[in-house]
Amino acid sequence: MKNIFIIGCGLLGSSLVRSIQKKKIAKKIFIYEKTKKNILKIKKLKLPGRIVKSVKEGAINSDLIIFCTPMSEYKNIILKINNFVSPNCLITDIGSSKIESSKIIRKFLKKKISWVSSHPIAGSEVSGPEHGKINMFNDRWCILIKEKNTKKNHLNILNKFWKKIGSKTVVMSPEKHDKIFSMTSHLPHLVAYNLVKSAQEFEKKQNYNLIKYSAGGLRDFSRIAASNEIMWRDIFFDNKNNITKAINLFIKNLNAFKKDINSKNNKSILKKLVQTKKVRSKIIKLKQDIDKPDFGRN
Amino acid sequence: MKNIFIIGCGLLGSSLVRSIQKKKIAKKIFIYEKTKKNILKIKKLKLPGRIVKSVKEGAINSDLIIFCTPMSEYKNIILKINNFVSPNCLITDIGSSKIESSKIIRKFLKKKISWVSSHPIAGSEVSGPEHGKINMFNDRWCILIKEKNTKKNHLNILNKFWKKIGSKTVVMSPEKHDKIFSMTSHLPHLVAYNLVKSAQEFEKKQNYNLIKYSAGGLRDFSRIAASNEIMWRDIFFDNKNNITKAINLFIKNLNAFKKDINSKNNKSILKKLVQTKKVRSKIIKLKQDIDKPDFGRN
Repeated sequence: MKNIFIIGCGLLGSSLVRSIQKKKIAKKIFIYEKTKKNILKIKKLKLPGRIVKSVKEGAINSDLIIFCTPMSEYKNIILKINNFVSPNCLITDIGSSKIESSKIIRKFLKKKISWVSSHPIAGSEVSGPEHGKINMFNDRWCILIKEKNTKKNHLNILNKFWKKIGSKTVVMSPEKHDKIFSMTSHLPHLVAYNLVKSAQEFEKKQNYNLIKYSAGGLRDFSRIAASNEIMWRDIFFDNKNNITKAINLFIKNLNAFKKDINSKNNKSILKKLVQTKKVRSKIIKLKQDIDKPDFGRN
Repeated sequence: MKNIFIIGCGLLGSSLVRSIQKKKIAKKIFIYEKTKKNILKIKKLKLPGRIVKSVKEGAINSDLIIFCTPMSEYKNIILKINNFVSPNCLITDIGSSKIESSKIIRKFLKKKISWVSSHPIAGSEVSGPEHGKINMFNDRWCILIKEKNTKKNHLNILNKFWKKIGSKTVVMSPEKHDKIFSMTSHLPHLVAYNLVKSAQEFEKKQNYNLIKYSAGGLRDFSRIAASNEIMWRDIFFDNKNNITKAINLFIKNLNAFKKDINSKNNKSILKKLVQTKKVRSKIIKLKQDIDKPDFGRN
């Protein structure tokens, strides 16, 4: 890899910049960032790489372009770089849903340009380059998206790239990807937003000061419900079919829980509560979370 | 305070034992624990206090009795100690819902014996005395329950006790308590159990290995969904009326979110996502959670 161009230098973009430099993956790093606020932060942080004034400038000179913007910006950026990407360049992105963005890419990206999508399973409730971290992607899964026309050598390039970054990789179709993450990520975020919203409504209606008693569980959800709203709007809209199915399954199960509770069905509820407990140990065994109680936070 | 009797020495009971000794709150500590497994652990941990063989033995000799068992055990224990509690003794408990347990207490506790309920907002997904901690209740809210006949001097005794333990106290009616915690604690737990259950069902149906990709959000919920099943069954059953209302509000709001997503209602969804974000900062300001991103876990 010679030159890498990061478009969008927020939490994940800036983490990539840090990691690419630390691991000496690129000769040159170019950075494009839209907001003045973030540009000032990047300069102050002395992040490695050269900030370019237009996406054109970065695109011309790069071998790998990584879209790290919200997915709703892909179209505009594609239209701006279409004429300037070299034929040997590979484009990827780190968006969290894949079917819809794949349609945008097919529709607007010039046919001779190559794009193979990635999705590193990493992030946090905070945004901005100041929160980026060198080890953001270490030991995390990165999903590489294989479509009908995806070339093997492009998958190989991305596979090498993400492994150098420190991630574990796995190849998936956009359809499988969007189904899995509707359940492991998109629904959890929606449910967290919805729980916090319900608590806010309840607080207002009852005129109780209840957020101060949030340490009993609500506080956990408030973290996820503080995630970037533009990014999450895009994900919810782009993966709406799978998310709708996930919501329906969730509501069906919640109504079954309600029935158990109202009929005090001891056997049925205990079976459920014992079953779900097993997932935590599985997650810890799979090293998807730390093993300390309470996330080790106290 | 002279002698304190802890009935049920699991996560919270053992934390109280540790804290009572460290802060020299009692002359003697008596411990009753039902399971042999926990008794062996208590001995191995060399927890302070004397393990008694019957609740009667501890009750006779104590000035303060603290029920730290699941709420479904209150009735049986009350019937065993009714004839042995001294008239000067005060009983409290640390149960998470109050209206139903108050009915049990009124029905079965002898009239001359005093019981004023407490609810320290503390806990974790792990159970057992080996996970107890001296600082479990430090700077945490402890709700003291005031009913019609609650005597002021009993509230004073409990207030002093919990403040010595390190908690902040607030007085509430059982009705207000059960409403607030249906939203800040009981619904969040139910929603977490339900999300994990839905993911398990989805995994089975789709034959996808999805738990390994849980770092995108699901892992947070799996922690809460690993909480003690007996304790949570009791809470769900005891506070079923408030929890049912909370479930209904939650489902109403989730359907509104679904509608926004399906109609791609940008304005409506962004308003919601921005609103809920504010709760996180409020929670951190109120010191109900740590201020590090991602609970500081990485």
